[in-house]
Formats: sequence, C-alpha cells, structure tokens
Amino acid sequence: RTLRIGLIPGDGIGKEVIPAGRKILEALPASLKLKFEFVDLKAGFEAFEQTGAALPEKTVEILKNECDGALFGAVSSPSKAVKGYSSPIVALRKRLDLYANVRPVKSVMTAKNPIDMVIVRENTEDVYVKEEKTYDTPEGKVAEAIKRISEKASFRIATMAGEIALRRQKIRDSGVPSIHKSPMVTITHKSNVLSQTDGLFRSTAREALAAHKFASSVGVEEQIVDSMVYKLFRQPETYDVIVAPNFYGDILSDGAAALVGSLGLVPSANVGEGFAIGEPCHGSAPDIMGQDIANPIATLRSVALMLEFLDEEVAAAKIYSAVDANLEEGRLLSPDLGGTASTTQVVEDILRRL
Amino acid sequence: RTLRIGLIPGDGIGKEVIPAGRKILEALPASLKLKFEFVDLKAGFEAFEQTGAALPEKTVEILKNECDGALFGAVSSPSKAVKGYSSPIVALRKRLDLYANVRPVKSVMTAKNPIDMVIVRENTEDVYVKEEKTYDTPEGKVAEAIKRISEKASFRIATMAGEIALRRQKIRDSGVPSIHKSPMVTITHKSNVLSQTDGLFRSTAREALAAHKFASSVGVEEQIVDSMVYKLFRQPETYDVIVAPNFYGDILSDGAAALVGSLGLVPSANVGEGFAIGEPCHGSAPDIMGQDIANPIATLRSVALMLEFLDEEVAAAKIYSAVDANLEEGRLLSPDLGGTASTTQVVEDILRRL
Ligand SMILES: CC(C)[C@H](C(=O)O)[C@@H](O)C(=O)O
Ligand SMILES: CC(C)[C@H](C(=O)O)[C@@H](O)C(=O)O
Repeated sequence: RTLRIGLIPGDGIGKEVIPAGRKILEALPASLKLKFEFVDLKAGFEAFEQTGAALPEKTVEILKNECDGALFGAVSSPSKAVKGYSSPIVALRKRLDLYANVRPVKSVMTAKNPIDMVIVRENTEDVYVKEEKTYDTPEGKVAEAIKRISEKASFRIATMAGEIALRRQKIRDSGVPSIHKSPMVTITHKSNVLSQTDGLFRSTAREALAAHKFASSVGVEEQIVDSMVYKLFRQPETYDVIVAPNFYGDILSDGAAALVGSLGLVPSANVGEGFAIGEPCHGSAPDIMGQDIANPIATLRSVALMLEFLDEEVAAAKIYSAVDANLEEGRLLSPDLGGTASTTQVVEDILRRL
Repeated sequence: RTLRIGLIPGDGIGKEVIPAGRKILEALPASLKLKFEFVDLKAGFEAFEQTGAALPEKTVEILKNECDGALFGAVSSPSKAVKGYSSPIVALRKRLDLYANVRPVKSVMTAKNPIDMVIVRENTEDVYVKEEKTYDTPEGKVAEAIKRISEKASFRIATMAGEIALRRQKIRDSGVPSIHKSPMVTITHKSNVLSQTDGLFRSTAREALAAHKFASSVGVEEQIVDSMVYKLFRQPETYDVIVAPNFYGDILSDGAAALVGSLGLVPSANVGEGFAIGEPCHGSAPDIMGQDIANPIATLRSVALMLEFLDEEVAAAKIYSAVDANLEEGRLLSPDLGGTASTTQVVEDILRRL
C-alpha cells in the first residue's frame, strides 16, 4: 500500500518537527509493506504574509483530491489582530470535516503516577464556528460570539469516543499492560449554566453511548467542566476516555499535557471519514525556533496516531514503542524534559529503536 | 460600625459552612468595634422545591435594601434538567450587579512550592448571559448560546484587577512576606479564535491597565487561555493577578484550587459597588453532607474577603492569619486535607487563634 501524505510544517518549530515526522515514516521497516509519497504544502502566518492566504486554496484542494493523510506542524498567531488573518488549522478542520480531534495523553508506565487518557474533542463547532459581531451602544462596544452545538456533531463525537474506548480495551485484552481495567467514557459539559447547548451535548452523548455496541461494556459518567479541570489534576489516573465539546477539549488537553510534563509529548489527530491529519499539540514556539531543541515526540506520536486512523495499527504500534523506549531509558531527552539532547539526536535515537 | 449580613446557606454542606462563617464574625475581638446583625435568607434547589423559586424575590429585595454584605454557601444542581430551575448564584450576581468574582488562591508560605495568586473573574456576562435557543434542522436539533463581551464590563474588571494588584503590593510593602516582588496582571483570552469578543476583552483590558495609576507600577502580560491552563500547572508561582472573562475565570479558579490541594480552601467574593457576597468555591457536596466533615476554611476565608471589600481590612487580616496558623500547624485538618478533624473542631481551633 502506498500512502500519500501532505506535509504542512507551518511556522516556527513546525518546520523542525514535521521533517522528523517524514523521517520516521521513511524509516519504517520494509516488512510492513508500506510506501509513502510526500507533498509539501503551505499554511500559516508566513504563508499569509507571502500569499495573502493563511490557508491557500491549493493546500485544501491537494489534501482533498490527492492525499490519504497529512501532518500539520504549528502556526504562529500574530501578536496583534491582523486584518484578514485567521487560524488555518481551525479552517482546515472544517473544510475537510475532520470532526474529531483525538488527543491521547499518556505517561510512561514507570512514571510515579502513571496516567493514560484520551481526550476526544469535537472539532467543527462550539465557539469555533467563529460567528461574531460587534455593535456600538451608549456604554461602548459590545461583541457577541455564537456557541453552536448540534445533535449530529455531538452524536458522532460521542460515538467516536465509545469506539476508542472499545479499541483501547481490545489492546488491553491483547495483553498490553495498562492502568485501566475497563472502558469508561466521561462526558464533559456545563449544562448547569448552558442548559440548551451543553444540555444537548450531554443528552446526545448519553444517547450515543447507550447504543447496543457500547451499552454492555463501556461505562459512562459525567463531569461539569470546571470540576473536570479540578479532577484532572487531583486524580488524573481515573480517566480513560474524555469526550468534550470543541472548546472544553482545547482546555482539557493542554491541562492534561501539563500532567505529563511537557506539551512536547502530546500528539493529536484531526479525524474525518477516511482522512486524518496528525498534529502535535504544541504551538510554533518562536522563542526556541532554529535551535534544533524542539521536542519531536509530539509529532512522532502524531504520525503514529494518523496511521492508526488510516488503519495501519501495526506501523503505529512500532512508532509508539520506539518513542516509549526512548522515554523509558531517559538518556536522550530534549530540554523541555530536562535533558540536553537536540531534536536531531532524539529523532536518531527513536529511529534506531524502530 | 454595625454590618448587616445576609446568610444564604443554600443546599448540602452550605448549611454546615455558613454557620461557621457566622460564628467567626461573632467571635471577632471587641477592640475592632464591629457589630454584626444577621438575616437568614433562602436560595437553592431546596428553596426551589419548596417555593418554586431557586432565588426567591424576597432574598434579592432584602439583600438590596437591608444588607451590607452576605455569605452564600452552595447550591445543588439537579442531576437532570428540571423545568424552571436555574442557578440562583448566577442570577444573584447579575441582579445585584456584582461584577467581579475575586478568587485568591494561596498556599501557606511554608509549602514546598508556594503559590499566591488572585483570579479576578468577570461576573456578569460571557456565556453566563444564558441566552440560548434550540431549533430543528433536517439533520437534528441545533442549539446556540450567546457569548457576550462588553467594553464596559471588560474595562471595569481589568481596573479591579489592577487595583487588587496595587493593593497586594501595598501589603507586601508593609512587610508581609510574599513570593512576588512586583505587581503583575495576566490577561487571559482566546483572541486567536475569537477575534471580536475576546479581542475586545484583550484590547479593553490593556487600555484599562494603561491608566496612569497602573502604568508606572503594574506589569501586564497575556496568556491564551489553553496555554494559561498549561502554565497554571507548570509554573503557578509566576502568577500574581489573573484577569479573565467569566467562563475562563470559572475554569482557572477550579484549576488553581487543585494546586493548593483542595477546593475546600478556596474562597471567593462577588463584588459590586459597595456590596460583597462571600462564597466558598466548592459546591454543595451532597456526598459528604450531614457528617460534620466539610472543610470550613473556604467559607472563613470568604468571610475575610467580604470584609476586605467592605473596607474592614484589619478584621479580614485577623481571620486570614488565624486560618493560616491552623494550616501551618497542620494538627487539626479536615479529611479533604488528609486530616481527621471535624468541621466543628477546625472552626473551634481557628476561633481560638483569632
Ligand atoms: C491554535 C488554536 C486555534 C488551536 C485551537 O484552539 O484549537 C490550538 O490551541 C489547538 O489546541 O490545536
Ligand atoms: C455553580 C455554577 C453556576 C458556578 C459557576 O459556573 O459560576 C460555579 O461553578 C462557580 O464557580 O461559582
């Protein structure tokens, strides 16, 4: 099988980690019978300055028509509002209907307090519909944004969460050690204040998870989002799969990343029907760009995650365990983890372990 | 001076901690020349079941016309949506125009990693305007909520944040030990996605903090809210005063509470012109009600915070140091802090230290 992968480095350290992602795909053992072709694509603030478009139409077209998956680095936000500029990743998620943002946050098993959760974030609506308006009143300006929650999107994201919970159980059943015993999905919302929008998310998610294929095996519980943030930090080991509307998912995944010590470890995949874009959770980190010290692990794990959603689970597992081996040994670590290894050295070490 | 204080225990452990708040006011040394009168008021889910109103009109009227301040316990949210029920504290904040929710989160100075921050949360708008609608589409139900941000509310909350930063500096200048050297306000927003609403909050807060009285002495920085959650956990000691729109403030204060070990330690005050309601950050905790094991400290600190905003800073300082002394000694602690003391015992110990 040949997979055609779009590479969108974006800005800042995106340009250093996406090449690492390409390298690991090229280094996968021949026995897997996987071939890769790559297409370099533009998006981001630099692209905006060069071409006037943060997400050039060509990038969307090529992804849609020619690619099986993609890797997205990071983009810089301008420090002040710039007319006509808006985040290309948010646009891309919508244009390709990548309705799920899947963010596994996992410590090594030997950590003092191991955690192993997946945040399944709705990826197309909530305040990310970006429908805003501003008007003048005698007391000054007032701005409003729409937060939109639909039954359709809530149902499919909760279904995805249930499926991921089952898939994780299957992996545990196959003998892979885990801190969890049985699958559990936690529904996050704020329906005590937002009775209609978050109320709809809550009831629809409950309904989706009551489906026959989940009902007998996947536990379901709920957390109000503020209390979820609290518990995330007090008892993170409790959580298996967390499903959340777009914005809460954004917050919770950064919070969970703090628990494993660095955003530089946390991958994500933007997933739609038959398409996935791997994307490290970290930003473009202009303060450290060009120094070869960015942690490539978030990207390498995002590559694996993308492969999982393209049904290449064996290849994905190879990458995960090479990364885990590097972390467990703890000899070649990037500075965000307290080490002194360069990006290049970390990548080499992990490739060696494939 | 005689202060008339409304007591609104609400539901669950609210009924155990609000009496403790009353006790500490009654126990303040006579040398302070402060007298208190109390009015018992209803609100909450029980009030709703009894009277049909979660926030009875009489409660609002008495607070408005007869009281100088109040203490609010906690209310239970029904586990399913109940017609006509909606959170009385959200309504109260709006009805009395208590535009600021001030939430200091502080560890004892002897903690391994001491932290000392105040979250200044806008308290009247954002998604808490609760303007929602639901409509049918061929693909199912869709619900929308309005997130509203005004220049006026953003300006006054940022001004309050600046004033709190200056006040904290004054206390440090008077010789009280602190982990901070100079005042700093961190503006939290998500203007990379919400350019109009959060953009307005960001630019207005910047403007407010550029006022002459702050410009020379209060440092100002910004954090995107997801990154703020991350940093809150990675380097909490950095933060002095954080100012945020309503919902982000809700999230961040629960997150910060996790850092000091228990929501049972974290107070808040809902503050308007000349009026303040002290309110512990924790909920009604039905699981532990009636057992005399709720931590009363969040409420006792909320009493002190209310007094601060009623310009009784000396009385407030007495309560803070009695609480700190109890915590520093660590002998009589409630179960949420790993101790075995009852609510009654903790309260007695703190009263003794007044
Ligand atoms: C850059 C930003 C628009 C984005 C988001 O909010 O989704 C980022 O925070 C993320 O989590 O991928
Ligand atoms: C109970 C709920 C409405 C409230 C809020 O969201 O403000 C609570 O979480 C708080 O922080 O005081």
